[in-house]
Amino acid sequence: MSTRYAIILAAGQGTRMKSKLYKVLHPVCGKPMLRHVLDQIGKIDFTKKMVIVGHGSESVKACVETDAVCIFQKEQLGTAHAVLQARGELAGLAGTTVVLCGDTPLVRAETIKKLIDFQEKEHAAAAVLTAHAGDPAGYGRIVRDASGNLSRIVEDKDASEVEKAIDEINTGIYSFDNQLLFQFLEQVGNANAQGEYYLPDVLALLIQADEKVVACTTQHFEETAGVNDRAQLAAAEKTMRQRINHEHMMRGVTLTDPDHTYIDADCLIGQDTVIQPGTIISGKTEIGAGCLIGPNARLSNCQIGNESIVEQSVIEDSEIGHAVQIGPFAHIRPESIIHDQAKIGNFVEVKKSEIGAGSKASHLTYLGDAVLGCDVNMGCGTITVNYDGKNKYQTHIGDGAFIGCNANLVAPVSIGKGAFVAAGSTITESVNDDALAIARSRQTNKEKYAQKLNYRVNQ
Amino acid sequence: MSTRYAIILAAGQGTRMKSKLYKVLHPVCGKPMLRHVLDQIGKIDFTKKMVIVGHGSESVKACVETDAVCIFQKEQLGTAHAVLQARGELAGLAGTTVVLCGDTPLVRAETIKKLIDFQEKEHAAAAVLTAHAGDPAGYGRIVRDASGNLSRIVEDKDASEVEKAIDEINTGIYSFDNQLLFQFLEQVGNANAQGEYYLPDVLALLIQADEKVVACTTQHFEETAGVNDRAQLAAAEKTMRQRINHEHMMRGVTLTDPDHTYIDADCLIGQDTVIQPGTIISGKTEIGAGCLIGPNARLSNCQIGNESIVEQSVIEDSEIGHAVQIGPFAHIRPESIIHDQAKIGNFVEVKKSEIGAGSKASHLTYLGDAVLGCDVNMGCGTITVNYDGKNKYQTHIGDGAFIGCNANLVAPVSIGKGAFVAAGSTITESVNDDALAIARSRQTNKEKYAQKLNYRVNQ
Amino acid sequence: MSTRYAIILAAGQGTRMKSKLYKVLHPVCGKPMLRHVLDQIGKIDFTKKMVIVGHGSESVKACVETDAVCIFQKEQLGTAHAVLQARGELAGLAGTTVVLCGDTPLVRAETIKKLIDFQEKEHAAAAVLTAHAGDPAGYGRIVRDASGNLSRIVEDKDASEVEKAIDEINTGIYSFDNQLLFQFLEQVGNANAQGEYYLPDVLALLIQADEKVVACTTQHFEETAGVNDRAQLAAAEKTMRQRINHEHMMRGVTLTDPDHTYIDADCLIGQDTVIQPGTIISGKTEIGAGCLIGPNARLSNCQIGNESIVEQSVIEDSEIGHAVQIGPFAHIRPESIIHDQAKIGNFVEVKKSEIGAGSKASHLTYLGDAVLGCDVNMGCGTITVNYDGKNKYQTHIGDGAFIGCNANLVAPVSIGKGAFVAAGSTITESVNDDALAIARSRQTNKEKYAQKLNYRVNQ
Repeated sequence: MSTRYAIILAAGQGTRMKSKLYKVLHPVCGKPMLRHVLDQIGKIDFTKKMVIVGHGSESVKACVETDAVCIFQKEQLGTAHAVLQARGELAGLAGTTVVLCGDTPLVRAETIKKLIDFQEKEHAAAAVLTAHAGDPAGYGRIVRDASGNLSRIVEDKDASEVEKAIDEINTGIYSFDNQLLFQFLEQVGNANAQGEYYLPDVLALLIQADEKVVACTTQHFEETAGVNDRAQLAAAEKTMRQRINHEHMMRGVTLTDPDHTYIDADCLIGQDTVIQPGTIISGKTEIGAGCLIGPNARLSNCQIGNESIVEQSVIEDSEIGHAVQIGPFAHIRPESIIHDQAKIGNFVEVKKSEIGAGSKASHLTYLGDAVLGCDVNMGCGTITVNYDGKNKYQTHIGDGAFIGCNANLVAPVSIGKGAFVAAGSTITESVNDDALAIARSRQTNKEKYAQKLNYRVNQ
Repeated sequence: MSTRYAIILAAGQGTRMKSKLYKVLHPVCGKPMLRHVLDQIGKIDFTKKMVIVGHGSESVKACVETDAVCIFQKEQLGTAHAVLQARGELAGLAGTTVVLCGDTPLVRAETIKKLIDFQEKEHAAAAVLTAHAGDPAGYGRIVRDASGNLSRIVEDKDASEVEKAIDEINTGIYSFDNQLLFQFLEQVGNANAQGEYYLPDVLALLIQADEKVVACTTQHFEETAGVNDRAQLAAAEKTMRQRINHEHMMRGVTLTDPDHTYIDADCLIGQDTVIQPGTIISGKTEIGAGCLIGPNARLSNCQIGNESIVEQSVIEDSEIGHAVQIGPFAHIRPESIIHDQAKIGNFVEVKKSEIGAGSKASHLTYLGDAVLGCDVNMGCGTITVNYDGKNKYQTHIGDGAFIGCNANLVAPVSIGKGAFVAAGSTITESVNDDALAIARSRQTNKEKYAQKLNYRVNQ
Repeated sequence: MSTRYAIILAAGQGTRMKSKLYKVLHPVCGKPMLRHVLDQIGKIDFTKKMVIVGHGSESVKACVETDAVCIFQKEQLGTAHAVLQARGELAGLAGTTVVLCGDTPLVRAETIKKLIDFQEKEHAAAAVLTAHAGDPAGYGRIVRDASGNLSRIVEDKDASEVEKAIDEINTGIYSFDNQLLFQFLEQVGNANAQGEYYLPDVLALLIQADEKVVACTTQHFEETAGVNDRAQLAAAEKTMRQRINHEHMMRGVTLTDPDHTYIDADCLIGQDTVIQPGTIISGKTEIGAGCLIGPNARLSNCQIGNESIVEQSVIEDSEIGHAVQIGPFAHIRPESIIHDQAKIGNFVEVKKSEIGAGSKASHLTYLGDAVLGCDVNMGCGTITVNYDGKNKYQTHIGDGAFIGCNANLVAPVSIGKGAFVAAGSTITESVNDDALAIARSRQTNKEKYAQKLNYRVNQ
């Protein structure tokens, strides 16, 4: 195996995206397009990886992190000019260089490897990845000679009627002998309508020089689709979604409607978990086995144990145990930990809190900056009053405590184990283990008074 | 350019819809089918526009408003009979008359104009719009002679095997020389199986009289689809949805899943706004640039500024500023105004209220008939008690006030600027600027009492 | 008409499902696959019905109930061996036996009847149901002779290139003369790569013995699809969903997006009801006419009257009257009854409660174990305190009572007709008709105190 290099072209401005965001940074299934390409490239053993970056390079550089060297292309003068920017890193080195685009998020490592292997097996100076397109209009066509060898690539606008009928197209993904690549790049001119330096011209020059150039055909045309506008972005998202969802189904996850289940590229889901429609699972979420998620749940960067249920709720950056029940209509905000068999019911918000095993907050409750022990029962409408307008404070509730409905626990405050807070109480002082705390007025009934009410002042 | 007239046939009963609602009033992407046709017609300069209305005419008239003259067709005796109802308005006038159906919501002005222009350019007595159908069964077929000119239209049931194989069909959309139209309409008979007067017979009569009749082919067969049952209604909705969504994407809006994003025909969305799946945007909604809307948000007749976030929430007939955060699980009801950088969090309802810039109602709150200044903090569980069983009253809260958790503000009541309401208080009297208001009982702790509780009376 | 028998093969392990759940028990549109087959079989007059059950038989038996006899297949030695298990029930009886698979949930009674009728009309020993497949790879091919009669079935792996091009395939659904079936089953051997006894071999043996074997072609290939993995399960769900939704639309129900509306097989929906996207209607739900359901509503085992509205809410095992308004964001839990014209608004939970006609709980309320009369007004934030940590108790509220905001009604408690509970009160004792009940502290305002607050102790 030769030494291998990869160049990702990511300097195009993407004007048809009509966006302030740099084109290759637009996400597909939760990950920037360029990141998808980098992650696939990362599965292959490349000695050097370069991203050619233009306009807006800082944000692109941040996306690349340390996974590749970013090379700045001052002016965008065409694909050949872009590749030439890597001259300083690569010119003269023995090896094989793959060139691909940062706006083709669907390309897979297997396909790239197949291209390289094909070129090396054929001892060719270069190989172009080709595919059969349903509608080849707009693409460069692959013209083969009588024996099936590549004779040339003709651009759509230059193609004759016969050539236009060819459905084998240039995907824009290439593998080159690195030394020849940089040798011939220098000879590419810009005497064309756009005044640009085109990379396919290197192939023409190689053929002219009697170097062997081969075409490697992939059956996966959809992998090579470039994204130039938001409709293509949505199409790429759909294809990626189908790919991701198919893999989860093959591993034993039920997706009631895979067309309408949105799972980011890097999530894990256990066997026999059922994902109902409209569910969005994003970031680095891991879900255990035998769970029921959705419909319309949204989980971002969560860990969920086994046999847990999450009905149309939102969970962000939190950790959920086994056999936990959440929702419908619950909101678990970041830095929360919900232990096994706890229940978070409807219209309950949990923020930066820890909920002990078997504890319940079944309805209309806010738990913020709270630490609950096991088997705590939060009554309906209970609130941890964690904010005084200036600072946030913690609430601690011991095992087995019972907090009555509509009670306020004004933090910082501690409720002891087995303590009981009466419904409707505003608790400002801590309560010892097994104590009863009450803070409310005695009831007065005024007979036959309801009709006489001056409603405004008495309600 | 000749004088132009338009006749929309909207008298069909639509029995296959199985509906109390008149067929042409069934909505497609939030707008009655007839309204779509009227809106397209409205883009062309017609001197007179007529809608032929039958059964249920009052509701149809209400939909037409002043955009066309409604003509009542007492009995439905066929399309020729329907057109004939416009005799009083049109007979004898020089000009061109377009006839189209109120149940073809997808037809576009461009296509209608193309038909008229074609007829006029050809100096023809009439032009029929034709299209190539994947499955032509059931349609009238376009029979052309050797030189490609229209020779006749044959109905499906009368077609020979050879004619049945023709895939060019009559779309039912016509352009006529107005004088000839009414002259020949009188000659149409009803000697057929249904005993109806058919408009295509006018074309046959014109041809017979050696008048020139031409066929104008559109590539957009889908535009001409008529809606006769709810499956066709859903299909029309899907096509319209794709058309609308494609336009938004081309203008720089990201739709994560355009197949599952529902935007009415007349909404505006700014560049770089991201719409997540399951979102429904209806009525005359306008959304600014750089917003994040959804998933599963529902916005109806709203104005949303730039950089605002609306997560699975419902907003109706309200105005939202810039950089506002709403949801998840919030409900903004009509006549609300939320100013810049305000936050309306989970399980919060706002009704007919104004929320000042930077104010927050983060959780479990009801703001009804309230006017909040800037930087107000509504604690969790706070309620504006706006209703006494008879009337509704207003609550005013000054800039920078802090309302403690679970507090009730019994309207009419004013809370001054910088005032502080203690958690758990029911406020019935107004509070001055910078004052503290408190209305709650002192806490009593009864040690070791929780276990002894007669739970029923003490909770 | 002959006596008829049915054998359903349901013993396959379904390893590609990667599931703890037995394959035929995986649900499609809310019903186990086997149950779909049994329900279709149930529409035909079969004298005996048998399900061949293997591994995990107890749960399968529970699904079959009394609708068929379950026969245990100790080892899975192939389809012929499976059918042979019914020998004790069927061998020697005159009549016709249909054999089909428990993992083909889409097959319809009409298609099965067509197969039996065809066989009997042809006086054939056996009939095989065939279909034309878009991609026949993997299926047994139907080889017909010059006159179009079945000559043999060839397995994919044994097929010649010419045979592989045949697109008519064996669906695995058969109808046999029962006596001949069991006579020839004994002769089937297992001398093949898998060492299994294959049912199609019976057909070969019958043909060899000069018995008449016929092929009956269905146009509905999609009905015969077997489910072997979760992707095929999702595909079957999609086809079934389209079938169910199409039927509802033909009956006069509007589905805004039928691709994204999930209705179980046994639900009823009235005319002119509109179902918005993302809605899930499951179990034995019945919905009246003229309702608006969704978007994103979830209804399970509910009865809904006419003209009711359910916006993104969850309703389980409950009964809803006419012109009721529910949601958005409401949760009606089991055993609730909501009478006509009642309103359950946002962030309201109802559990095991009865809500009288015209009563309202518009916001942030919990009604558990409560019985409300007519025209009751539950203020925002009101809670029926039904649980004391040990037991649950009931709340009764009389007609026309008004419960002020954030009030707690500590059960067991009764509020009389026309009674008025002041906002912010915790009610522990019953209130008579027309009485006013109040339990709260008087308000104190401390002027200019807000700035001096030691926020922590005073909020």
